[in-house]
Amino acid sequence: MNRHTDDAPHPIYLDCDTGIDDSLALAYLLSSADVDLVGVGTVSGNTDAAQAARNSLALLELAGRTDVPVAIGAHDPLNGRYDGGVPEIHGVNGIGGVQIADAERRPERESAAELLIRLSHTHAGALRIVTVGPLTNLALALAMDPTLPTRIVAVTSMGGAALAPGNVTAVAEANIWNDPEAAQLTLSAGWPLTLVPLDVTMENRLDEADRQALLDSRDPLARALGQMLDHYFDFYLPEYGVRSCALHDPLAAAIAVGGVRATRNPAVPVEVDTSAGPGRGQVICDLRGQRLGQRDSPGATVRVVLATDRSLGAHLVGSITGATQLA
Amino acid sequence: MNRHTDDAPHPIYLDCDTGIDDSLALAYLLSSADVDLVGVGTVSGNTDAAQAARNSLALLELAGRTDVPVAIGAHDPLNGRYDGGVPEIHGVNGIGGVQIADAERRPERESAAELLIRLSHTHAGALRIVTVGPLTNLALALAMDPTLPTRIVAVTSMGGAALAPGNVTAVAEANIWNDPEAAQLTLSAGWPLTLVPLDVTMENRLDEADRQALLDSRDPLARALGQMLDHYFDFYLPEYGVRSCALHDPLAAAIAVGGVRATRNPAVPVEVDTSAGPGRGQVICDLRGQRLGQRDSPGATVRVVLATDRSLGAHLVGSITGATQLA
Repeated sequence: MNRHTDDAPHPIYLDCDTGIDDSLALAYLLSSADVDLVGVGTVSGNTDAAQAARNSLALLELAGRTDVPVAIGAHDPLNGRYDGGVPEIHGVNGIGGVQIADAERRPERESAAELLIRLSHTHAGALRIVTVGPLTNLALALAMDPTLPTRIVAVTSMGGAALAPGNVTAVAEANIWNDPEAAQLTLSAGWPLTLVPLDVTMENRLDEADRQALLDSRDPLARALGQMLDHYFDFYLPEYGVRSCALHDPLAAAIAVGGVRATRNPAVPVEVDTSAGPGRGQVICDLRGQRLGQRDSPGATVRVVLATDRSLGAHLVGSITGATQLA
Repeated sequence: MNRHTDDAPHPIYLDCDTGIDDSLALAYLLSSADVDLVGVGTVSGNTDAAQAARNSLALLELAGRTDVPVAIGAHDPLNGRYDGGVPEIHGVNGIGGVQIADAERRPERESAAELLIRLSHTHAGALRIVTVGPLTNLALALAMDPTLPTRIVAVTSMGGAALAPGNVTAVAEANIWNDPEAAQLTLSAGWPLTLVPLDVTMENRLDEADRQALLDSRDPLARALGQMLDHYFDFYLPEYGVRSCALHDPLAAAIAVGGVRATRNPAVPVEVDTSAGPGRGQVICDLRGQRLGQRDSPGATVRVVLATDRSLGAHLVGSITGATQLA
């Protein structure tokens, strides 16, 4: 056991479907001084789990971090089949069509769920989980080892839409939509979980100036991210009316490590709609009775982030490019 | 046929589950110069349909409007049984325990759905429908006469929660919750329907000064309303932190007759969750893509009110008490 002390970097396992904004989240975690990225698991979502691992390995190699193990996770959701991803958003290769040399090394032989369980023992009582894709791997890990939550400090998950519109259906967000059953198992596992929904991620953006700052960096990973954003900005143009993008995944990473703090994050009952009805994939967050200020529901283990202390954009770019971080 | 001309008052059929805020809506419509209330149908919700008719008749008699027919509508929702109402909100008799003498006259022999269909012929091409309770009667009328929408100018319905929390479940509002199947039939009937959800009704309130103005009125109906609000304010105290109440039903009435105007009311696809899942009773409004301003969806027949030009409170009290209306 490797109990965490306050001055040591936080060991973090990242579960991702890399993905352009997943790449931003990965780069952010690599650039954060108080973070020790101890493993990456992949899952099908923005792209398939194998391609997500290929992308993650390539990005880690660009960053010189060939020490971080990458494990391929679930290709299919718990029920049904992977739908093929969203090349119109993240490009055919998941990273906006940007060509990065494949890494020398291969993914681990173990699955993402196995890697997570192994790391939970190595870093028992210290490991934090950040998820920025569908929750299939976490649900599988919970099924394989129900004691997993006892060794985890916290889970931070990008997912859901509490009071904001969804992005796949009127009420469903993509990470939850892609595996509602896994999301329900993960959200009801009793561990302290912070949900970072579209309500806040859609309000955090990068724009052309940010993209240029990444392109102008001497850091090859930063430059690759700037290239990927070209594709991503195209997708968001009709939504925002200006070339820019939402910062879904990096916001979850930043909240997980304290780079951005939640200022409104009530602990409330949540339930994923796993029916076949029109609400399938919605994370139903019970936000009744919050009018007079935050009211945590006794026994609720999921906090839903509804407001943060600052915008992520400048902090994110500053961190990734190694520039002085703006306060 | 009695085609409406612009300078004649608008003929209106009110469908209600009277109800304290239903009583406010009824009084408001009676006090509006450009409104001809031509019929009232009742339905079980806040109280049962028979009691709602008794209350409506008594209130109409207080107002000297014994000419307005009142018909008892559906006691039970399309599926299942009436659950007994909410005496903790609206009192055991539906009007906050206030004792008003029963009217001399009785309800019509016809049902509310039959009354609505009859009025749709009498006022074909002119009749407007305002609903402030569950939509059972409208669904029944549509089933009895599918040509009904061709004779109706507009339907305005208090119901649903678009981006705001629900008030029965995390996502379901009471009028829809009480009969989701009827709501789905009504919202998909193709007539121009304006949905007035909790998003706006919770932001419109009466407070103690308003209640006192009603109690100080020389109008007996206004005074009775002031008495009812005593009970209603108690219920809302934990929500607002001050004795006051939401104006759910009167806001729908005011929007229907132009006393309050919607400033944001996109026409969007809507679907009621009629599943047995956790989202049952939710009106799923597709509000994606509205960030850059209102975008009406081609073919959508339901408008969802998300913002209005002014608060209803002072206008409502002024109208009911006969005081000069504030601009």
